[in-house]
Amino acid sequence: MRGAPSEINGLYANTGNLLKAELFTPIKSTIYRWHQSRFRGKQAAMNDPFHVIGIVRSCYKEKFGIPRQSGQAPTATGTLEMLPPYNRPEAFTGLEGFSHLWLLFLFHGNRHREWKATVRPPRLGGNTRLGVFATRSPFRPNPIGLSAVTLQGIEASGGKVLLHLGGLDLLDGTPVIDIKPYLPYADSLPEARGGFAAEAPAGRVPVRFLPAAEQLCRQLEQQRYPGLRQLIIDTLGSDPRPAYYHKNPPKSGFGMQLLDFDLHWEQDETGIRVTALRHRPDDV
Amino acid sequence: MRGAPSEINGLYANTGNLLKAELFTPIKSTIYRWHQSRFRGKQAAMNDPFHVIGIVRSCYKEKFGIPRQSGQAPTATGTLEMLPPYNRPEAFTGLEGFSHLWLLFLFHGNRHREWKATVRPPRLGGNTRLGVFATRSPFRPNPIGLSAVTLQGIEASGGKVLLHLGGLDLLDGTPVIDIKPYLPYADSLPEARGGFAAEAPAGRVPVRFLPAAEQLCRQLEQQRYPGLRQLIIDTLGSDPRPAYYHKNPPKSGFGMQLLDFDLHWEQDETGIRVTALRHRPDDV
Repeated sequence: MRGAPSEINGLYANTGNLLKAELFTPIKSTIYRWHQSRFRGKQAAMNDPFHVIGIVRSCYKEKFGIPRQSGQAPTATGTLEMLPPYNRPEAFTGLEGFSHLWLLFLFHGNRHREWKATVRPPRLGGNTRLGVFATRSPFRPNPIGLSAVTLQGIEASGGKVLLHLGGLDLLDGTPVIDIKPYLPYADSLPEARGGFAAEAPAGRVPVRFLPAAEQLCRQLEQQRYPGLRQLIIDTLGSDPRPAYYHKNPPKSGFGMQLLDFDLHWEQDETGIRVTALRHRPDDV
Repeated sequence: MRGAPSEINGLYANTGNLLKAELFTPIKSTIYRWHQSRFRGKQAAMNDPFHVIGIVRSCYKEKFGIPRQSGQAPTATGTLEMLPPYNRPEAFTGLEGFSHLWLLFLFHGNRHREWKATVRPPRLGGNTRLGVFATRSPFRPNPIGLSAVTLQGIEASGGKVLLHLGGLDLLDGTPVIDIKPYLPYADSLPEARGGFAAEAPAGRVPVRFLPAAEQLCRQLEQQRYPGLRQLIIDTLGSDPRPAYYHKNPPKSGFGMQLLDFDLHWEQDETGIRVTALRHRPDDV
């Protein structure tokens, strides 16, 4: 018989905080016999670290303000730069035929928070607790995220492979662990029932600009940041405020880092007013 | 300045086979400055092992014969049994409102094979090489799979949480590392362009039964295996033969393990003929 009990015990001991000693008995009795030969595979898989295959450079430089799902801000673009040894151009042959990709990535911005069994999704105003597995919350047992992004181009030259992406909901610096093609015949399930998030988030919030901010934005578009105005509208229009600000907006307004700028705005029930756009120092 | 070079060097040394010493220079020069403060997050994430949160019990007991994507055999059912400490019922509150789930899982059946930059997808007859990132091949830098499955029920009692699932393309014993709700508004992209796999696999292969196999199948359905016949049709109808058997079918026919049975069939250009169904010994 493969997978004798003593070996299984050693295996559990290796898995650190996944399984605690006092939990041996129920697991053994329920799953042990079914999977005795397969635990070896688990052990091997669990001892492997995540391999980060690339890093995303995104227009979003901080968590605040990032759309809550991919595709919500189509103009949110960025690049995925592959790390060696995953930067071999032939690893992408055929990818150009796909309009969308899945990215599996690590929520690297939340590494100091433990997972919890329940979370309060912003969609429900932050007041209702749901099970973590009923949400796409980043605070999960494995901090892995899943985003469908558009593939706008593949650039391979000089030992680099860059994927140009759109519809991002990713923080700058996000480590990517897998790229998969989006297969509409298997992945697109328009008839699926979407629970508490059945519909896309409520209509977009109207976004206006103060005259000075509008003028600067137009200038910047012509200089170096084409599409900047629409990116601001797409991003703020999805109402990134945490739920607790809905009732108590801060007197000083809101701010977020977008591309090379600090973006400032005020928000009330009539909509959003962009008040300022300031270039950040280069070394930030 | 955060993330001084010496610290970054130490970080690379920690990451084992992800990054080799001779690759320090190009990475540092291209990404180092952009992400100096963020590499700390990567390090933390990479030192974490995968946490297996549950194990799938599937009708598919070996790799041969498993549909190549989820949803292709709707009657392929199974359960996901959550492991402690992820078996707390409150972690699933709200999940019952969703018809479909994403499972992120480990390809535990292929742990001895290294990833390669190119693979030969069965969809293309096994003759054409594509980049691994243009395919859903299991032989990836991180052996993580992604399947959209139907949620047929949640059973929580006696310290166990079982999710009843359908449309499986998973091997029995598959370790699951995340469960996410399928969000149609973000995940369903019927307009996506699907490259070499734009369409669902070609029409299903007709499946007939030899009289003895048919009779046994009906008997088994009444005893303990409702839906067995349709499961066989759904599974074989998606033509699981590897490409190299299309031209040179084995004289002895094909066989696969399905549920508690060894299923035997013959296949030619007119379709599939189920020749036998034999109960496997209990201790397998």
